[in-house]
Amino acid sequence: MSYQIAVLAGDGIGSEVMAEARKVLSAVEERFELAIEYSEYDIGGAAIDNHGCPLPEVTLKGCEAADAILFGSVGGPKWEHLPPNDQPERGALLPLRGHFELFCNMRPAKLHVGLEHMSPLRSDISEKGFDVLCVRELTGGIYFGKPKGRQGEGEEEEAFDTMRYSRKEIRRIANIAFEAAQGRRKKVTSVDKANVLACSVLWREVVEEVAKDYPDVELEHIYIDNATMQLLRRPNEFDVMLCSNLFGDIISDEIAMLTGSMGLLSSVSMNSKGFGLYEPAGGSAPDIAGQGIANPVAQILSAALLLRHSLKLESAAVAIEAAVGKALSDGYLTGELLPASQRANAKSTSEMGDYITKLV
Amino acid sequence: MSYQIAVLAGDGIGSEVMAEARKVLSAVEERFELAIEYSEYDIGGAAIDNHGCPLPEVTLKGCEAADAILFGSVGGPKWEHLPPNDQPERGALLPLRGHFELFCNMRPAKLHVGLEHMSPLRSDISEKGFDVLCVRELTGGIYFGKPKGRQGEGEEEEAFDTMRYSRKEIRRIANIAFEAAQGRRKKVTSVDKANVLACSVLWREVVEEVAKDYPDVELEHIYIDNATMQLLRRPNEFDVMLCSNLFGDIISDEIAMLTGSMGLLSSVSMNSKGFGLYEPAGGSAPDIAGQGIANPVAQILSAALLLRHSLKLESAAVAIEAAVGKALSDGYLTGELLPASQRANAKSTSEMGDYITKLV
Ligand SMILES: CC(C)[C@H](C(=O)O)[C@@H](O)C(=O)O
Ligand SMILES: CC(C)[C@H](C(=O)O)[C@@H](O)C(=O)O
Repeated sequence: MSYQIAVLAGDGIGSEVMAEARKVLSAVEERFELAIEYSEYDIGGAAIDNHGCPLPEVTLKGCEAADAILFGSVGGPKWEHLPPNDQPERGALLPLRGHFELFCNMRPAKLHVGLEHMSPLRSDISEKGFDVLCVRELTGGIYFGKPKGRQGEGEEEEAFDTMRYSRKEIRRIANIAFEAAQGRRKKVTSVDKANVLACSVLWREVVEEVAKDYPDVELEHIYIDNATMQLLRRPNEFDVMLCSNLFGDIISDEIAMLTGSMGLLSSVSMNSKGFGLYEPAGGSAPDIAGQGIANPVAQILSAALLLRHSLKLESAAVAIEAAVGKALSDGYLTGELLPASQRANAKSTSEMGDYITKLV
Repeated sequence: MSYQIAVLAGDGIGSEVMAEARKVLSAVEERFELAIEYSEYDIGGAAIDNHGCPLPEVTLKGCEAADAILFGSVGGPKWEHLPPNDQPERGALLPLRGHFELFCNMRPAKLHVGLEHMSPLRSDISEKGFDVLCVRELTGGIYFGKPKGRQGEGEEEEAFDTMRYSRKEIRRIANIAFEAAQGRRKKVTSVDKANVLACSVLWREVVEEVAKDYPDVELEHIYIDNATMQLLRRPNEFDVMLCSNLFGDIISDEIAMLTGSMGLLSSVSMNSKGFGLYEPAGGSAPDIAGQGIANPVAQILSAALLLRHSLKLESAAVAIEAAVGKALSDGYLTGELLPASQRANAKSTSEMGDYITKLV
């Protein structure tokens, strides 16, 4: 069997960490005798510079021809003056999500044993650990709802956005959250604002219906404001958090920061056919780009998720994850994960990649 | 001069902590020779039980006749089965905010010296302290935007909410944030999601315009998802956070939890005429109601804010705040602020109230 991956490295640290993911993938190909073809395309700021827009037609066509997208990161100060719609992040990610109907976003965040000190939480809270999976609806809600725009003149001029959810949309993402929970600690926390939003009232109704099909999974509802708080006090009590598009944006970032090690977190955005976009949780980090110090682990783990979810190569995915786990527990760490006093032992981006490649 | 305060104690711990606020207010009246009249009205769950709705006409009329509202807290398990619109919190607070056009919500959150250990943050972060004022728009955005509702049938049935902001609405709340910053550390952080929401793009435009009138105040913009993260890493770098209704709901709760001592936080919701509703940040806490252990400080500080903002009695407000400060630094604390090993020294609700009253 042969596979096609569209590689969209993007801006900032994107190409550096992508190079390491490619090394690891090569080792996996060899070990599991796979034939993977890679096609590289411009995206984000690089695409603005080379093609005049963040998601050029040729990139989109290349993604259509592939089995999955391995995405780096986009954006940087160079393009920040552009109007919102033309900026790298918004202009690349939102149309890709919309075009491929990548409605299902999964962002796992786990506090790694030995890295508890990285968490910004108090030690008696972080030492209990946590392991949360944020399941976020990604093609609906206020991100894509119409009408969206402006009307009126002078001080009366107003802007408007529409949050919109159908039963169907809520049901399909809820099903994924419950299925995921069955393979984990069997608890779904659905995040909404049902005391204010009509969308959240429908959300709660449909989630309650879906829950009936998963009698082994516990369901609780929590308001977004309270969720933001409870994650700070007792993150270990959450398993799967089911969120609409906007609330998932907020909750997934909060949880990522609670781990204190964004360079380790990857995510998947999938459609109903198993086609997906795989990307690290962190951004393009322009401040450290080009220095060879960025952590490639999130990009490498994104490749593992791609093998698992889009190519259905579970054992290859597990091999990468095991290699990463071993590297970390061997104390092989990039600088941002080390206390200042131990920075001299920091591994470079390529040292990390090489070590993990060797372990695959 | 004589004043009228509408007292809405509400549910759970509401009446217990309100009794202490009333004691303190009595002492202030005497010391400053004020004539304050209090009228008590049912609100929330108590109003549902006695009048069939969370905000009865008689309560609304009473508030209209007053100079300000001193609010306790509403809600509890008894009323949780009711449809969203009829529930105590939503059914009491939202109509009050709408009716009196209380567009300006200010929620200060500060880590008190000596109470750093209460924060869920890592000690090296919390020991730097923080002092953030969340200025939240309270009568616009997706809370009140029309249309809001449902349409369609079966699986196609959908719910929708409208986020809506006019230049005028944004300008008046932005002005308040900048004025507040001038009396503080001269920095405004405006929270939005301008990479996705049309409302946020307008928000940013108007806030930039307003900033020109306050050249001494530094302005920065931050996306809501990033704000949620940065508050965990460097809360001390924020001064005034300017937020729309929905984002302010989330951010104010996150900051409140970061202090770890919600029982000390009060808030004001005001209109353009200086009429306001004053309430503690915490909820009705049904789990500890009736035990005489709730912390009355937030309710007492709400009374101080009422004296300052609606009655323009600055020195009376300062007297209360000084008394509270003294009580806390004397180690006079309710149980939730003490480590388990020192709980035997915990003061009761009325002991706290009596002590603060004596200090006024
Ligand atoms: C860049 C932005 C449009 C995007 C979002 O809001 O979804 C990002 O924050 C994310 O979470 O992937
Ligand atoms: C009760 C609820 C409607 C309210 C809100 O969302 O504004 C509350 O969370 C608050 O922050 O005062």
